[in-house]
Amino acid sequence: MGIIGSTVKPFKATAFQAGKDFFEVTEKDLEGKWTVFFFYPADFTFVCPTELEDLGKQYDTLKGMDVEVYGVSTDTHFSHKAWHDTSDKIGKIQYPFLGDQLHTLSKNFNVLREEMGLADRATFVVDPDGVIQIMEITCEGVGRNAAELVRKIKAAQYVRANPGQVCPAAWEEGSETLAPSLDLVGKI
Amino acid sequence: MGIIGSTVKPFKATAFQAGKDFFEVTEKDLEGKWTVFFFYPADFTFVCPTELEDLGKQYDTLKGMDVEVYGVSTDTHFSHKAWHDTSDKIGKIQYPFLGDQLHTLSKNFNVLREEMGLADRATFVVDPDGVIQIMEITCEGVGRNAAELVRKIKAAQYVRANPGQVCPAAWEEGSETLAPSLDLVGKI
Amino acid sequence: MGIIGSTVKPFKATAFQAGKDFFEVTEKDLEGKWTVFFFYPADFTFVCPTELEDLGKQYDTLKGMDVEVYGVSTDTHFSHKAWHDTSDKIGKIQYPFLGDQLHTLSKNFNVLREEMGLADRATFVVDPDGVIQIMEITCEGVGRNAAELVRKIKAAQYVRANPGQVCPAAWEEGSETLAPSLDLVGKI
Amino acid sequence: MGIIGSTVKPFKATAFQAGKDFFEVTEKDLEGKWTVFFFYPADFTFVCPTELEDLGKQYDTLKGMDVEVYGVSTDTHFSHKAWHDTSDKIGKIQYPFLGDQLHTLSKNFNVLREEMGLADRATFVVDPDGVIQIMEITCEGVGRNAAELVRKIKAAQYVRANPGQVCPAAWEEGSETLAPSLDLVGKI
Amino acid sequence: MGIIGSTVKPFKATAFQAGKDFFEVTEKDLEGKWTVFFFYPADFTFVCPTELEDLGKQYDTLKGMDVEVYGVSTDTHFSHKAWHDTSDKIGKIQYPFLGDQLHTLSKNFNVLREEMGLADRATFVVDPDGVIQIMEITCEGVGRNAAELVRKIKAAQYVRANPGQVCPAAWEEGSETLAPSLDLVGKI
Amino acid sequence: MGIIGSTVKPFKATAFQAGKDFFEVTEKDLEGKWTVFFFYPADFTFVCPTELEDLGKQYDTLKGMDVEVYGVSTDTHFSHKAWHDTSDKIGKIQYPFLGDQLHTLSKNFNVLREEMGLADRATFVVDPDGVIQIMEITCEGVGRNAAELVRKIKAAQYVRANPGQVCPAAWEEGSETLAPSLDLVGKI
Amino acid sequence: MGIIGSTVKPFKATAFQAGKDFFEVTEKDLEGKWTVFFFYPADFTFVCPTELEDLGKQYDTLKGMDVEVYGVSTDTHFSHKAWHDTSDKIGKIQYPFLGDQLHTLSKNFNVLREEMGLADRATFVVDPDGVIQIMEITCEGVGRNAAELVRKIKAAQYVRANPGQVCPAAWEEGSETLAPSLDLVGKI
Amino acid sequence: MGIIGSTVKPFKATAFQAGKDFFEVTEKDLEGKWTVFFFYPADFTFVCPTELEDLGKQYDTLKGMDVEVYGVSTDTHFSHKAWHDTSDKIGKIQYPFLGDQLHTLSKNFNVLREEMGLADRATFVVDPDGVIQIMEITCEGVGRNAAELVRKIKAAQYVRANPGQVCPAAWEEGSETLAPSLDLVGKI
Amino acid sequence: MGIIGSTVKPFKATAFQAGKDFFEVTEKDLEGKWTVFFFYPADFTFVCPTELEDLGKQYDTLKGMDVEVYGVSTDTHFSHKAWHDTSDKIGKIQYPFLGDQLHTLSKNFNVLREEMGLADRATFVVDPDGVIQIMEITCEGVGRNAAELVRKIKAAQYVRANPGQVCPAAWEEGSETLAPSLDLVGKI
Amino acid sequence: MGIIGSTVKPFKATAFQAGKDFFEVTEKDLEGKWTVFFFYPADFTFVCPTELEDLGKQYDTLKGMDVEVYGVSTDTHFSHKAWHDTSDKIGKIQYPFLGDQLHTLSKNFNVLREEMGLADRATFVVDPDGVIQIMEITCEGVGRNAAELVRKIKAAQYVRANPGQVCPAAWEEGSETLAPSLDLVGKI
Repeated sequence: MGIIGSTVKPFKATAFQAGKDFFEVTEKDLEGKWTVFFFYPADFTFVCPTELEDLGKQYDTLKGMDVEVYGVSTDTHFSHKAWHDTSDKIGKIQYPFLGDQLHTLSKNFNVLREEMGLADRATFVVDPDGVIQIMEITCEGVGRNAAELVRKIKAAQYVRANPGQVCPAAWEEGSETLAPSLDLVGKI
Repeated sequence: MGIIGSTVKPFKATAFQAGKDFFEVTEKDLEGKWTVFFFYPADFTFVCPTELEDLGKQYDTLKGMDVEVYGVSTDTHFSHKAWHDTSDKIGKIQYPFLGDQLHTLSKNFNVLREEMGLADRATFVVDPDGVIQIMEITCEGVGRNAAELVRKIKAAQYVRANPGQVCPAAWEEGSETLAPSLDLVGKI
Repeated sequence: MGIIGSTVKPFKATAFQAGKDFFEVTEKDLEGKWTVFFFYPADFTFVCPTELEDLGKQYDTLKGMDVEVYGVSTDTHFSHKAWHDTSDKIGKIQYPFLGDQLHTLSKNFNVLREEMGLADRATFVVDPDGVIQIMEITCEGVGRNAAELVRKIKAAQYVRANPGQVCPAAWEEGSETLAPSLDLVGKI
Repeated sequence: MGIIGSTVKPFKATAFQAGKDFFEVTEKDLEGKWTVFFFYPADFTFVCPTELEDLGKQYDTLKGMDVEVYGVSTDTHFSHKAWHDTSDKIGKIQYPFLGDQLHTLSKNFNVLREEMGLADRATFVVDPDGVIQIMEITCEGVGRNAAELVRKIKAAQYVRANPGQVCPAAWEEGSETLAPSLDLVGKI
Repeated sequence: MGIIGSTVKPFKATAFQAGKDFFEVTEKDLEGKWTVFFFYPADFTFVCPTELEDLGKQYDTLKGMDVEVYGVSTDTHFSHKAWHDTSDKIGKIQYPFLGDQLHTLSKNFNVLREEMGLADRATFVVDPDGVIQIMEITCEGVGRNAAELVRKIKAAQYVRANPGQVCPAAWEEGSETLAPSLDLVGKI
Repeated sequence: MGIIGSTVKPFKATAFQAGKDFFEVTEKDLEGKWTVFFFYPADFTFVCPTELEDLGKQYDTLKGMDVEVYGVSTDTHFSHKAWHDTSDKIGKIQYPFLGDQLHTLSKNFNVLREEMGLADRATFVVDPDGVIQIMEITCEGVGRNAAELVRKIKAAQYVRANPGQVCPAAWEEGSETLAPSLDLVGKI
Repeated sequence: MGIIGSTVKPFKATAFQAGKDFFEVTEKDLEGKWTVFFFYPADFTFVCPTELEDLGKQYDTLKGMDVEVYGVSTDTHFSHKAWHDTSDKIGKIQYPFLGDQLHTLSKNFNVLREEMGLADRATFVVDPDGVIQIMEITCEGVGRNAAELVRKIKAAQYVRANPGQVCPAAWEEGSETLAPSLDLVGKI
Repeated sequence: MGIIGSTVKPFKATAFQAGKDFFEVTEKDLEGKWTVFFFYPADFTFVCPTELEDLGKQYDTLKGMDVEVYGVSTDTHFSHKAWHDTSDKIGKIQYPFLGDQLHTLSKNFNVLREEMGLADRATFVVDPDGVIQIMEITCEGVGRNAAELVRKIKAAQYVRANPGQVCPAAWEEGSETLAPSLDLVGKI
Repeated sequence: MGIIGSTVKPFKATAFQAGKDFFEVTEKDLEGKWTVFFFYPADFTFVCPTELEDLGKQYDTLKGMDVEVYGVSTDTHFSHKAWHDTSDKIGKIQYPFLGDQLHTLSKNFNVLREEMGLADRATFVVDPDGVIQIMEITCEGVGRNAAELVRKIKAAQYVRANPGQVCPAAWEEGSETLAPSLDLVGKI
Repeated sequence: MGIIGSTVKPFKATAFQAGKDFFEVTEKDLEGKWTVFFFYPADFTFVCPTELEDLGKQYDTLKGMDVEVYGVSTDTHFSHKAWHDTSDKIGKIQYPFLGDQLHTLSKNFNVLREEMGLADRATFVVDPDGVIQIMEITCEGVGRNAAELVRKIKAAQYVRANPGQVCPAAWEEGSETLAPSLDLVGKI
């Protein structure tokens, strides 16, 4: 089966979040709100901090949309904390990071580069039922765009809230949507 | 193995393109240029035409970047032609469409919704070696954004042309890039 | 086991019929009446419309005989509707068409040309118990004959209604039939 | 794979034909001419003789079209001869009968009713390359129509002789045919 | 296990017997009386009629000994009737014939010549418990001897009726028998 | 495959014959002459000596017909010799006995009563090519008839010597035979 | 597992004993007394009678020790009786012989020479619980020594009756035995 | 296969022998002379020393007969040396001991008591071709008899040296032997 | 799974301990106290006694810490006793030795040198729940250090008694320990 | 097979070492010198730094003994560098660290705690042939002792350099060693 429409597989990981004690996150924590899994290759590396920072700036907006965000790499939660303590850019990030040294999440989402033991640069948006609705992966060296991610989550939330309507290409919040009907088949 | 970094599997499909006789496309045709596979569920349906049209407007830009584009659904090439002949929006599109009634491409890229016989709303960017570098899938009802796709292809082309540099998050053509080095580890 | 005498396997397909909303058809809908499955390769193609039209002209007769007819190809119901909307010949047809983009029916009746993803030019007559009684397939380019189909269904209905009688070769409604008995063995 | 387009599997059977000694027939004998395999359940039974006789009357026409005909049942060649010697109707038939007491042909063409050891009432038309092009099966008690068979073989021969043309529904020799082209897609 | 001492396997066959409608015979019909299965290759052939006729002459004797007889070949019951109707020799035979076109009996008794689809020239004597007690097979061209068969059945019936006695070589009804005992071991 | 028409499987056994040293017999010794294998349950037992003696009286006749005879039981050659030395009846027998304590022959001919370790009362006639042509088995207590055996061997030799002729039922040397031909089919 | 200490496997054999009718022996008959199985290759052969006679002379002694003895070969009980009737030496033996033509005992005790169908020259002593305590096998041509066998059975009976004592090498009835204890470890 | 007549399987063991350095023994060392393997449960235990001592007294005799002797237990060669150094009885023994802590020999000869890790009280006599000719096992507590062992080896050597003769029961060197012949069958 | 943290597998062995009768030890005996398994290659060998003696000197200390010690080799308990009786160094040792001639313990702890049948020079410390907490193996010729073993057991006991504290490198009883906390991550 | 005596399996890992660029290490780098693999659970954690520091103080000594040392955890080389840059204790360490985020080394040496994705606290000493000679693992919370490690490596180097000598328990450099010989067996 394709990944879109599939349910997130069970997992257990230890999280680090600024200002909190370490805590455990499982697939149970996804219930009832939207979730972003934001995978990146490794702590202390290059493009990653700019992407993580770019997403960090949207965190308040996303929290306001009832969306939780998890940064994920195959490093431990100890390493995540150490990075947070020693990097200015990472030190400002408020969303939690998951330690995936077990490779469970990277394998569940099929983004482990097996010959390196590191995750792809991959984003997954999960709905309040734990179902994956949106995904994106870019190759090494190409940064993602947090604003576009927000746009797509808004569209997905709109569609969930308004059954029977769809958002056209490059739709922005507030734009017109379409209501499909038999009469429109072959007419657009 | 994850899909990013994998090579496109062999396929054979009949294409329809405005102003041309039907012709065959295989994985051999991907060699030496960049390729976008733009999957959508079905001819004659709703969000699809706005997405296909949105991408159609970028086709000249993409051709200028040496990128070919293929629209793909599980309809036949006969159906693609009929849609082109009868829809104003689709009638203006210049890029070719592949008939995937065999489901080969949808299965090769793992985007077949098996209970429906239709493809996901999925985009794949393939480099001149036939290797998948970027992918994106959105759920039913959420339109993609062709401008963001162009941005990411530019970044990927930049990285391929400039080994040793990376494009930070939300990078736009002409912005600064980063050159990773040992000294930067843990310093950004 | 041979196909004659076998029961139609379970299926589910979305149907298009002129003047109706899309609706679902399953093997349950076969119960209690006779059914014709009329497979053809693809919407918008050549011999098919003449065959479909030829059968369309017999639809009133067949309805009067309590026989339902389904046109079936591996196109979607969206495509069937678009064809109906844009072709004069197809636009006149009153019987429903099933979208078999999942290939379920084509495989159940063993008429999928697997290297093309299209169905054979095949006809199946199913009795009110869901059992296949008559079948016919012709190669690409050879049209079927709706009048001969009607003749055979009449014979099959006669045999079902009159156990102990058989219809000789090229029997037409109203002609004599035969009542087999021990004494006739070796005597005809 | 579907049966249409498949090649006849190897077989060996002893034939009886009026005025000749018993002789062997194999798949080699199909090469270079058209062949009809006309299966029926059993010698000395009811509908069968009328069908066999009906076909017998077309035998000269078919020979003139370079078509050989074989009657086939699971009886022996001894039985075929005895039937020929003792039945007026059968006695007049000029085409050969194959003894399929081994069930090879009935199984190869998938028409053996396994719980009875008898063949279906099935017709197969094989082209000069040994490929099955047309088939038809009717249930017990429903006779076939030799004239319709001749019509379909003529259409198949026409299509083979005139690549690029197709015969519309219920086509009779001498009627118009169609030449498919891109421009006709979606236009008929 | 050897065949002598084994129980006849389940079967179902349609029988033809002069002056009767077709009827079904199964292994249940063997209970409570002795049975002879008399296999031969094919209806309408050469040695067979003389053997069948030779046995036919003993049928009254055998009936008097409470023994039923079945002629068996891989022909159908239709064929058996036709042979009976058209052959003087066969027409006089009173015992029933079984149609084994399914090959069930020929396989159960291990006498099917698989490359021909015909049975061996084999005789089996079954006791009232359905257990095979005597068997004989001769090659093609060598006729059996019904009188010798009657002699052996009489001996088998004698042994069954007189436990503790045995019939010496070439014993004829009324001759002396032997009663085995320890004292006779090594003394005859 | 049925046993008639099959080739004798390889074996090796030690033989005892009056007036000779022990010697070995294998399937090689069957070449070029006819052979009778005459199985019986055990040395020193009851019916057996009368059967063995009855056959012994035909041994000269059979030698004259170029037929060798082997008595076979699961006893050793030592036991065969001891029986010959101590029994009047057995002492007169001139044909050799094979020791089958290995059960090889009994299993090859499928006549071992496995729960007893003894052979059936079974006769096999093998032609000069090592092919089994005639067989017969009787239950415990029923003696065989050596004269009838001679009759059948004569018929088999006649058929072998005169291809194209067959011996009718209960044929005796010198009686008429039949020459099968197409014209006779269905005529006897 | 080694054979010493294993339990005799189930068997059933027919026994011959002078002055008695044939009777059956099974593993049940071993309960409650000591048993000797004395295997030898074949009735009517060479070393065997001297060994069987040597053991026969000890039979009274063994009976007095509550030990039963069985001579065993792959010959039948018929053959055992015949040998007893015709050989002076064997005729004097009082212990029973088992017919092992089924090879069950020879296989259970692992002494069948499979390429010959004969047993080894093997002795087994079984205790009243059916457990094998002593065994011995000699090659072809080497006779056993019944007196030594009696010595070993006496030792085994002594050990069973006197737990905690052991009989030293070449111990004879009445000699000293040893009582093992911790203090003796390393002291003898 | 039975053990008598089988060839000793490959092994490698370290040996201790009085007055020598440790040395290795393999199946190669058996070639060209007779060998006794004398298994016992454990060093420093009870019956064993008396048996080992009893055999030790025959060692000169056996050497004179060209027979080598190996004591074998699952102890190491270190333990064998320590026992020899500390026990008066064992200290006098001249033949070598093999350390079988690997269990190779005990398993090869099928005498390992698997639940204890100790060998049975078992003797094997191997001929100059490495073939086992004589074996004996006694239960725990019953000592073997070295004199009887010598007797049997002498008989086996006699038989090997004099093909065609056999030694009767309890044969002692110098006694009469038997020459088997056909005439003797059933006569002794 | 790694060995540390795994539970000792079931075993049964006979123990020798100075001044006691032989007794059995199983995994049940590990419950409720700490246990040291001290493997060595063989009784009566070289480095072993110095290691065993070195450990013997710590036995009182270990008993005082509620730790039991078992010396283990693949020798029998008989051999252990003999070594104790004859060696001055070993004779002074108070802790028990287990006879592992069955190789159960050596295999359970994965320290059997399979080509030699001897154990590695390996130490395992098991906690009162039967879980292995510490292990060490040295190659042939390198002696272990009992004082270091005592140090590590003290640390393991301290950690078990004081959850939340850890002993730093080369910690000696009474030295400072560390209490891990979130604030210390990345700070030591 | 046990781990002592086994060869290190192939691996490839990226190393961080103070003052050097990242570099790759494989099993090839072990050839010709001694190597210590010093596994620990995670960067930035508690006991680990004291153990790593304790070993760091012995690094000069070990280099002088021609021994290389690798610290190994499942963290990346990026993380190792970041820890080195930010921790005073770790910052002083001169030996290299391997990034085992692939888990290859942890699995090869069987020390991966699979439910955590972290390595055990394990030390392995590998000789110049790549063979593991010494190993040690302690449970969570128990620190290792670098001085004891140096002592054992010295002993192992001594034994390798002086075949035929062994180091007794707790041997320190310069102390006496033992030369094993047959005479010493059972004498120490």
